[in-house]
Amino acid sequence: MNLVCGIEYDGTDYHGFQRQAESQGETVQGAIETAIARISGVFSVVHGAGRTDAGVHASGQVIHFHSDALLSSTVWQRALNALLPKSIAVRWTCEAPERFHARFSAISRSYRYTIWNEYAPSPLHARYSYHRPLALDVERMQEACQLLLGRKDFGAFGRSPDETNPNKPGPHHCVRTMLDARCIRDETQTGIIYCDFTADAFLTGMVRRMVGTLLLVGQHRLSLDEFATIVQRAEKTHPGSAAPPHGLCLVRVEYPEQFGVVQ
Amino acid sequence: MNLVCGIEYDGTDYHGFQRQAESQGETVQGAIETAIARISGVFSVVHGAGRTDAGVHASGQVIHFHSDALLSSTVWQRALNALLPKSIAVRWTCEAPERFHARFSAISRSYRYTIWNEYAPSPLHARYSYHRPLALDVERMQEACQLLLGRKDFGAFGRSPDETNPNKPGPHHCVRTMLDARCIRDETQTGIIYCDFTADAFLTGMVRRMVGTLLLVGQHRLSLDEFATIVQRAEKTHPGSAAPPHGLCLVRVEYPEQFGVVQ
Repeated sequence: MNLVCGIEYDGTDYHGFQRQAESQGETVQGAIETAIARISGVFSVVHGAGRTDAGVHASGQVIHFHSDALLSSTVWQRALNALLPKSIAVRWTCEAPERFHARFSAISRSYRYTIWNEYAPSPLHARYSYHRPLALDVERMQEACQLLLGRKDFGAFGRSPDETNPNKPGPHHCVRTMLDARCIRDETQTGIIYCDFTADAFLTGMVRRMVGTLLLVGQHRLSLDEFATIVQRAEKTHPGSAAPPHGLCLVRVEYPEQFGVVQ
Repeated sequence: MNLVCGIEYDGTDYHGFQRQAESQGETVQGAIETAIARISGVFSVVHGAGRTDAGVHASGQVIHFHSDALLSSTVWQRALNALLPKSIAVRWTCEAPERFHARFSAISRSYRYTIWNEYAPSPLHARYSYHRPLALDVERMQEACQLLLGRKDFGAFGRSPDETNPNKPGPHHCVRTMLDARCIRDETQTGIIYCDFTADAFLTGMVRRMVGTLLLVGQHRLSLDEFATIVQRAEKTHPGSAAPPHGLCLVRVEYPEQFGVVQ
């Protein structure tokens, strides 16, 4: 049985999604694998759609794992939620064909970066947003987002996750397709700005570096022309630093209809 | 100088707003008084509009304190935010006439109780909402809210804060005026239900007991007639238990215009 789960987590206390080769602290993947082994008595590898960094959250991560345990997907959900730490939950479950793979079958991932743009800090928003007290020209950030759309080399904002994988020798390319990119103010909550991105796949650190550079555009410290040049040159040295991880959340992963994965 | 501050806090790790007679853990009032004393060198008593219970949050608490320090309200805000723990912040400050009192000058308080009404738990909502996986008839809860409106004895849902005050011998009455009460689903976030209440003042534990009883109405375990009888009898023994504190937030305190307190 190939079980697919929608996973939500508060990444604050985790060293990212992916289990580490050596023990470098708890990971989301490790916590889910531990719970599965406690339920079925057998270790099953968990595959995630997005390998989120340390401190990054998810409301719509998707995982799959294979198990021979004779449990329905509903029982799996209830059992996992009973055993998982409070910071990780299974939001939905379904069975998928054997060939379904949470990472390789995915056609797009969507990330949301949340900015708290008021002078005073907000303790109730602090856990899931990045506090930027300076004035931000969100319309200009939105214009810059248009320059990110389409299929191009995003080397300016990250590196290929395969670069650090000894089993995947180069060349590693940084070409990805940005399907949607926008910066908007939340109309119902003063002070909240969202930067939303959907792409076929993302480079390591890509959203946080895009946001860091867009913030310079929003502060008028970088013109739209300069932003366009940074994107076009696709070089790793550029003025934008990466925005911190706690503002970032993996919100959605899309799959072809044929797999019947209903989120 | 009588300084008024709008205070936001994450109440998770505090033993309520009010400083305890004996040391029973950290309080919001105590943390603010400590920060003020570090800035001015003198202890000033902090008076809060609402004495929130342990674990209850606030986005719109209002406090005042008197100080002879020659600092502008803007400098006070910056200094306090630099010294306060990350879980407490000063959202705004202003000067008020000497006679202004955060508690006694207030004409109304507004509380919001947030319910997470999905089958699966949500780690990203868990800190600020109460997870109720059962189906809830929110329209019926909204109908019950109409029975709470107006000036009446709310003894069914709490006791007077003065009952435990040895300096305030009885009789203690439980008559309050409910100006607004409603239960609504958040139109932008599936699964979120808000119970919003505005009254001239609230009894200790009142909002949490009202919500606990309204949840029974929403589950059709209590009819509207039975709810009306509970309200009318104003007795302390009734079927609704108090909803837990972490779903509750003090969102707003109103003052007469004459004080010039701009929030």
